[in-house]
Amino acid sequence: METARPSAVTSGADPADGAAEPAMLDPAAATELLRGYGIVALPERVVQTAAEAGVAAAELGFPVALKAMAPGLVHKSDVGAVRLGLTHGAEVEAVAAEMAGRIPDLSGFLVQSMAPAGLELFVGARRDPTFGPLVLAGLGGIWIEALGDVVARLAPVDRAEALAMLAELRGSRILDGYRGAPPVDREALADVVVAVGRLMQERPDLVEVDLNPTLAGPAGAVVVDASLLVGPTPAPQPRPASSTEAIRRLLNPASIVVVGASPTRAKQGGRLFHYLLKHGFSGPLYAVNPHATEVMGRPCYPSVSDLPEAPDLACIMVPGEAVPGVLEECGAKGIRSAVIYTAGFAEVGDEGRARQDELLAIVRRHDMRLCGPNTSGVVNAAASTCAAFGMAFEVERMPAGEIAFLTQSGALGSSLLSRSWEQGIGFSHWVCAGNEADLTVSDYLMALVEEPAARVVAVFMESLRDPDGFADGCRRARALGKPVVVYKTGASEAGRRAVLSHTASLAGDDAAYDAFFRAHGVVRVHDLQGLVDAAQTLAWQPAPRGPRIGVVSASGGACSVVADECARHGLTLPPLSVEAERRIRAIIPPFGVSRNPVDVTMQITVDPGMVGAIVEVMLAEEAIDALLVLMTTNADPPALEVARGVARAAAGATKPVIVTRVGADFLAPQSVPFYRASRLPLFPMPDRAVRALRAMVDYGTRVAAPGGE
Amino acid sequence: METARPSAVTSGADPADGAAEPAMLDPAAATELLRGYGIVALPERVVQTAAEAGVAAAELGFPVALKAMAPGLVHKSDVGAVRLGLTHGAEVEAVAAEMAGRIPDLSGFLVQSMAPAGLELFVGARRDPTFGPLVLAGLGGIWIEALGDVVARLAPVDRAEALAMLAELRGSRILDGYRGAPPVDREALADVVVAVGRLMQERPDLVEVDLNPTLAGPAGAVVVDASLLVGPTPAPQPRPASSTEAIRRLLNPASIVVVGASPTRAKQGGRLFHYLLKHGFSGPLYAVNPHATEVMGRPCYPSVSDLPEAPDLACIMVPGEAVPGVLEECGAKGIRSAVIYTAGFAEVGDEGRARQDELLAIVRRHDMRLCGPNTSGVVNAAASTCAAFGMAFEVERMPAGEIAFLTQSGALGSSLLSRSWEQGIGFSHWVCAGNEADLTVSDYLMALVEEPAARVVAVFMESLRDPDGFADGCRRARALGKPVVVYKTGASEAGRRAVLSHTASLAGDDAAYDAFFRAHGVVRVHDLQGLVDAAQTLAWQPAPRGPRIGVVSASGGACSVVADECARHGLTLPPLSVEAERRIRAIIPPFGVSRNPVDVTMQITVDPGMVGAIVEVMLAEEAIDALLVLMTTNADPPALEVARGVARAAAGATKPVIVTRVGADFLAPQSVPFYRASRLPLFPMPDRAVRALRAMVDYGTRVAAPGGE
Repeated sequence: METARPSAVTSGADPADGAAEPAMLDPAAATELLRGYGIVALPERVVQTAAEAGVAAAELGFPVALKAMAPGLVHKSDVGAVRLGLTHGAEVEAVAAEMAGRIPDLSGFLVQSMAPAGLELFVGARRDPTFGPLVLAGLGGIWIEALGDVVARLAPVDRAEALAMLAELRGSRILDGYRGAPPVDREALADVVVAVGRLMQERPDLVEVDLNPTLAGPAGAVVVDASLLVGPTPAPQPRPASSTEAIRRLLNPASIVVVGASPTRAKQGGRLFHYLLKHGFSGPLYAVNPHATEVMGRPCYPSVSDLPEAPDLACIMVPGEAVPGVLEECGAKGIRSAVIYTAGFAEVGDEGRARQDELLAIVRRHDMRLCGPNTSGVVNAAASTCAAFGMAFEVERMPAGEIAFLTQSGALGSSLLSRSWEQGIGFSHWVCAGNEADLTVSDYLMALVEEPAARVVAVFMESLRDPDGFADGCRRARALGKPVVVYKTGASEAGRRAVLSHTASLAGDDAAYDAFFRAHGVVRVHDLQGLVDAAQTLAWQPAPRGPRIGVVSASGGACSVVADECARHGLTLPPLSVEAERRIRAIIPPFGVSRNPVDVTMQITVDPGMVGAIVEVMLAEEAIDALLVLMTTNADPPALEVARGVARAAAGATKPVIVTRVGADFLAPQSVPFYRASRLPLFPMPDRAVRALRAMVDYGTRVAAPGGE
Repeated sequence: METARPSAVTSGADPADGAAEPAMLDPAAATELLRGYGIVALPERVVQTAAEAGVAAAELGFPVALKAMAPGLVHKSDVGAVRLGLTHGAEVEAVAAEMAGRIPDLSGFLVQSMAPAGLELFVGARRDPTFGPLVLAGLGGIWIEALGDVVARLAPVDRAEALAMLAELRGSRILDGYRGAPPVDREALADVVVAVGRLMQERPDLVEVDLNPTLAGPAGAVVVDASLLVGPTPAPQPRPASSTEAIRRLLNPASIVVVGASPTRAKQGGRLFHYLLKHGFSGPLYAVNPHATEVMGRPCYPSVSDLPEAPDLACIMVPGEAVPGVLEECGAKGIRSAVIYTAGFAEVGDEGRARQDELLAIVRRHDMRLCGPNTSGVVNAAASTCAAFGMAFEVERMPAGEIAFLTQSGALGSSLLSRSWEQGIGFSHWVCAGNEADLTVSDYLMALVEEPAARVVAVFMESLRDPDGFADGCRRARALGKPVVVYKTGASEAGRRAVLSHTASLAGDDAAYDAFFRAHGVVRVHDLQGLVDAAQTLAWQPAPRGPRIGVVSASGGACSVVADECARHGLTLPPLSVEAERRIRAIIPPFGVSRNPVDVTMQITVDPGMVGAIVEVMLAEEAIDALLVLMTTNADPPALEVARGVARAAAGATKPVIVTRVGADFLAPQSVPFYRASRLPLFPMPDRAVRALRAMVDYGTRVAAPGGE
């Protein structure tokens, strides 16, 4: 695969000249720069003529490699601009002359000592426009794109992290000496990775580093071909101001005005008002509408300026053209927080963006904070405040919960909310970020982690504009022991987008997000349902310290399914101690299985107390980090007895216990609510349970662990 | 990774001598055998002494490779038994002498011409104990185990199939000439793969073939190192007799006796009798129980011999020790089909297996067919016959459906049944295979595909004993246009099992099942819920002809989610024609998206008819093979109007249409049943929908297509 390159100039581009187009650093300068960071490149000479090439080769010692240089010539071996293993001066001269006669715009030759034997790797970096320098390591050298075995991290990377990157490669064990080759020097390779990270941090003009191949031998690693791309130093992004207090008030308003409130639920302003009333907002609630004197039993005022006080929050649901005037009036009245539901701003193009900028100017002038425009609103279920509209809020009662749900898509976010409610999962907050004219997901994250009712923040993310702010929120969440779980879309779009840069093709947008999440202790999930599943599990159960899962089931088939799912997600089913197996054998029937996964058999219907007793034994095992109870068609009343036993054993445990019941809910009308009341996450399918466990393990080992990242 | 080998003997083992232990074929014989199949190995000589090695090298021409030979020496380069690039006779002699002094049990030397430049591949085969010869191709040559990039097929493999295998390799594009190397000769490589398949078929004593590396160049492919393992010729497996008519009667009994029927539902024999009555069995139903004269209003007889007739089916639910006597009595009475629910046979060990063999002898003596023992039974919902027990059958009414569900796990199978009913999915049949003493899943498959009410067969599989019978069932299913969908567990167990053979470590049990499923047009799914989802979708919608998906949604966020899921599952979202986009633009609001995925925006609440109109436009597109409608919080009554429009557009279409509604069901109490009544599969999450589409595409392109496999 040939990848396009920005117009490349091999003559030494001055990184300080502020040229708009990125350019290749010339090879000698690149080698020199790398040497300053302790990165060893092969000895080489840059020369102009064929005759000089012969002389340079003799100086370096034979055999040598000869490479033609020309503007834009990157994948040299693709076009016959590389010859390896030349053994005497005349041969070098002849080959150089032949290249000179064939390759257009030839600017000279690179004469290089031949590479020693070694394993071909790729080490590189690119500067991501959102997240900054991303350091990459991969296996396969010149095969790298075809193998796609690349691991990325945000710079800086320390040695332990660099070694972890090498360990994460799919083909990592090749590094340990495959089929007779000696193990390669992982430390030396890690040093190259660390140095590239440092280089990217200290040289903000570097756009891309491509050390490929980097040959790793039993002692040391040497770079055979280095491409360094320099560009204009990016201007530092201004950090928007944040004000947690203003956002706190937006999430916890003591009083609210709905501008554009309507007496009829056929209108959106009517529905919004209705939802506020229906879901129990208990503070002063005002309506503003010049055509009404009363809305659903509450006083209605012709304008914001007529209000008897400045409420904490203005909910603005008026036609687009009226929005700036209303917002201005709110500011003048002294209202400091507003939600603008009205659509038709930045999301519809340049003209809309200009109108949105106008709103932002008003907000700044009055020192207000704004949610939206084009948002579905803000819900604080813990405070019975539903300042949101959408069919989801037709729900009879919003179940309380401990998950704060932050979404960049109103439609999808509210549909997931209603689907989760239907599954018995509650939320403490729900925030739709809308167009993020003022407040961004990063601001909301910071505010939500401070809310006492929120134990976990779940984020449906499309893109992140303020990664530093988000990182701050993550740090605060970590300090408070509150997990942040993210489902991020757009992986495939980034993939489909035309990729300008070679290195970016190896680690695109999605890899950058992944590295960012990893660096900041965000638990990433990969499906929509998994966002809620992981959040609920993290809210209810302690974090496991490792990936070792104990399973109790009443079906051999179920044990087999869960073993496959665990293997697929990198979780293990460790053997139990002899003592634990002995204790379990004393509990289960003789045809049961006392090894992990434990099968208590259908005897469970006769003796449902077995399950809790086994959970207790397994929780005490050093080798077990988390427990999965997996029931099949278990029905009440014995199912309830199973549930009681599990809940008893799990109460106060420092390891998580989660439950799967494949059988229909109608068979266990008492057990299902009992599990929920006992804060035991309940899943209908083993794959959902195992994915939730995977998220738990990611959190437990990377974030919550004392020695975590 | 070093892998253990069966005790290997390099002296030519005679494949006909029936030795119990597999042994390596000696190199000369291996080369000769391969040559007969058109597989080119490097020119080489086998010699005994260092001096002979020098002479042989001179005959072959320099440079040469020298390899030491010794019993059990397989990964020669791991132990310094290989030296490459030797350039003159004295050097060969010296190196050989050094090896002779170091390597124990040295039996001689292999002197080989040096390999030409080329891409390193692996071609191999192994004889699977269940499925027979499995042909393998992989990338990486000596890196193969670390990269794990291997594709397997059952032999025979034709050239097109061999080329498809190469195309399926993860790093396949390396074959097209990576970074300046010329494209390799795929045809020549495919010929090697085809020849290995033929070889395995024609030489049943070959246990394993390992051509590694096989070097592929621009013209031709040459084997550098060949290991052939021979063992005793496996005895042909006797095919158990099948009788479709007897199984048909088991599935469609006109009359039934329950032996061990009880008047109380507290006993299993009572529950079974109750389920037969409750779910409407309308034929003569007899009870046998020496302690009762009547069971739930039906006459009860002291023994089977006292029955007034020989019913079509005997359901035997008596204690283990009584089973043989009852079965014998049934046979004597002239009953030809029986289900034995009683457990405690082969599943509990050798003693139980002996008792099971006793049952089989009775069955054979009386020319009966037996389901079980240790089964949950047989259900024919289409015929209102529930000869099964388990809490699932407490359901008020078994919804009819078109999926025949065949399971090797009673507990898991019945739990999935009840969970599916709860989701509104019905089944035509449900068969639990139990211990398969007589009838196997293969027999049931053959019988179920013939049942008119079954449009799809879904199988929960743990292991397959009669692959030929299953293949026959698949062929019949294909002829009748009925898809067979399988969820197979045990992938991880096979992986964890100690792997004796090197080649088996590359393609274990699970790869063999995969190859078998592929060869016989089975659609494989990878999660439990996916089994039902895929079956339902295949039952209700036509098969797509390709992987090109059209999406209509009302949310940009949802479009992004589905794009990611499609990319993850190898489905594409092709661009629409200019004309289609024009027509869609005329339907949607100006801020909507007329490209695929189409976003009609929240305007859908005002104009719900848009969706059906767009489905119609997209179904007419040549570039679209299947359509996914993805709704978020869409609520009735507009949601019902959306549903009506989609159903109208989908009616009679030759392309499948499936629907996802993320929002809660309580928001669309009319739409949800309407979709089901319209045979439009409805999913709560986009990932479930996309996995079902993937299964549809596998079926449509591999099985249903006119030119399908």
